[in-house]
Amino acid sequence: MNIADLIPEYRSEINNGLADIYPRGPISLTKPVAYVLNGGGKRLRPLLTIFSAEACGGTKSSVFSAALAVEVLHNFTLVHDDIMDQDSIRHGQETVHNKWDDGVAILTGDAMLSLALRLLNETPVESHLQMKIFIDGLLAVCEGQALDKEFENQSSVSLDDYIKMIDLKTGYLIGLAAELGAVSTGMDSGICEKVRDYGRLIGRAFQIQDDYLEIFSNSLNMGKSLESDIVLGKKTFLMIQALEKDTDIINSALELARNNFEKGIGNIRLYLENEGIKKRAQEEINNILKLADNKLNDLPIDKEKLLYFSKIIKKRGN
Amino acid sequence: MNIADLIPEYRSEINNGLADIYPRGPISLTKPVAYVLNGGGKRLRPLLTIFSAEACGGTKSSVFSAALAVEVLHNFTLVHDDIMDQDSIRHGQETVHNKWDDGVAILTGDAMLSLALRLLNETPVESHLQMKIFIDGLLAVCEGQALDKEFENQSSVSLDDYIKMIDLKTGYLIGLAAELGAVSTGMDSGICEKVRDYGRLIGRAFQIQDDYLEIFSNSLNMGKSLESDIVLGKKTFLMIQALEKDTDIINSALELARNNFEKGIGNIRLYLENEGIKKRAQEEINNILKLADNKLNDLPIDKEKLLYFSKIIKKRGN
Repeated sequence: MNIADLIPEYRSEINNGLADIYPRGPISLTKPVAYVLNGGGKRLRPLLTIFSAEACGGTKSSVFSAALAVEVLHNFTLVHDDIMDQDSIRHGQETVHNKWDDGVAILTGDAMLSLALRLLNETPVESHLQMKIFIDGLLAVCEGQALDKEFENQSSVSLDDYIKMIDLKTGYLIGLAAELGAVSTGMDSGICEKVRDYGRLIGRAFQIQDDYLEIFSNSLNMGKSLESDIVLGKKTFLMIQALEKDTDIINSALELARNNFEKGIGNIRLYLENEGIKKRAQEEINNILKLADNKLNDLPIDKEKLLYFSKIIKKRGN
Repeated sequence: MNIADLIPEYRSEINNGLADIYPRGPISLTKPVAYVLNGGGKRLRPLLTIFSAEACGGTKSSVFSAALAVEVLHNFTLVHDDIMDQDSIRHGQETVHNKWDDGVAILTGDAMLSLALRLLNETPVESHLQMKIFIDGLLAVCEGQALDKEFENQSSVSLDDYIKMIDLKTGYLIGLAAELGAVSTGMDSGICEKVRDYGRLIGRAFQIQDDYLEIFSNSLNMGKSLESDIVLGKKTFLMIQALEKDTDIINSALELARNNFEKGIGNIRLYLENEGIKKRAQEEINNILKLADNKLNDLPIDKEKLLYFSKIIKKRGN
């Protein structure tokens, strides 16, 4: 079966697995957990875990619970981040804290994290190492989110600091998704690290793409509310460069966006195009994706599915 | 050295260990994490982990990182619960969400949980089993807190349901503190389970004591704000019985407490004394502590420190 046909199959298996992970518990937890895990999402991270295992000669079944753990971990971060960022829409549906309240959302996230850990601890192979990778990734995600919030209150942020932040916030989790797959096969640590680095770069490109789409896409395509991120003064790959070039123009466009979102964002879009920042962002995404693929060069693994994965990410931006 | 002299020594080692667990990271995380972990607390749970290991023939050093993990896990639950319960004081100092904000507190809790997991994953022995115990305990605590919040909005809660809730919310964590100590020594699972059940009963007694002290102590002794719990309509061991006896009297006393706390709580205290509910609560605490000690009967372990631990808990209520 070709990879394009395989993906919907894997995705549906993942969705079935997720539907079933928390059948019994207090209704104020089981309901929002099911709501989140049945709420959609492209399941890119667990797909990557499975692809990476298969690339290294492993099987889907031996890495399946780890793949589910990765997706649940990812969704845990979304539930908590959405509270902090006051986002009201995620994957096209109301966020948990909006539909219920902050307390329910905090606890739903906490429970999801323990469910993710339980799934990972059930994994049949290399469990101690997998747990270490998972836990380090969890801390990295927290640190990335902390830096992201810190940046909101800073008038200027360097691109280097920004890249460090998104590596923690987005890159490490996609990196661990890839690494868990490789590690589950008992591959040499040198190879596992290369596969991890591939995933981290994919994550970096993914986040810059997110930044790009946040401004140039509309919220319907993104399945989440964009206004809040921009109005909160989130520092993104594009906004940092725009602020560096002309703080006054951008700050007044942001001010305008707070009252009249379409008009303010229109001004920002125009500025990013005219100054070449939009084009440079697209180029950067493509460069990082190439760097990611290069990490796989000369590895004694079957790269096909991973290279296909990079293409999925690339297509997402177009 | 006798046990009474040992405790301050162990406590100070625990405090030193906790002071050091997160030296580097974003300042918006390292600061509140240090604030929480240096903020006091009696370190009862890690003491129990060490005592339980020693009772089973193990050493402090082989279980020390697990003991720290238990204390960090406990503090993680406090940070998140305090947001949900809108508590402003904990261990005699401002709560994290009050001193910073909800976002910082959510993330601080999440980071602490990953630090706890990292500590546990560093434990030298039986790490897979210890991780399983820890993760199951984490989910239990979330479920207990969820039920506790559900009960706030229920007009009546049975004592049985209440006990089930506090076992999850408080008992499981103290149970796992004891169990991790036993498990770290490679003891038979039957013995480890008895030690765990001892801990769970200690936890049950501890929570009923908390309910008791919440009404009959003052907030200075408890080191936390009591008004919020009572005014939120928290169902406690004593309040459930009072509500069962006379809903109207208690509800009007609670109504009064919302405007004039001292007067309202005074009425509740008087009612609990006159109806014998206060005395029954004291008896129940002592009974449960006896049941806990009985769990240790006939176990081929050195029970002395565990029995001393029960006495510490018992004294706390007087």
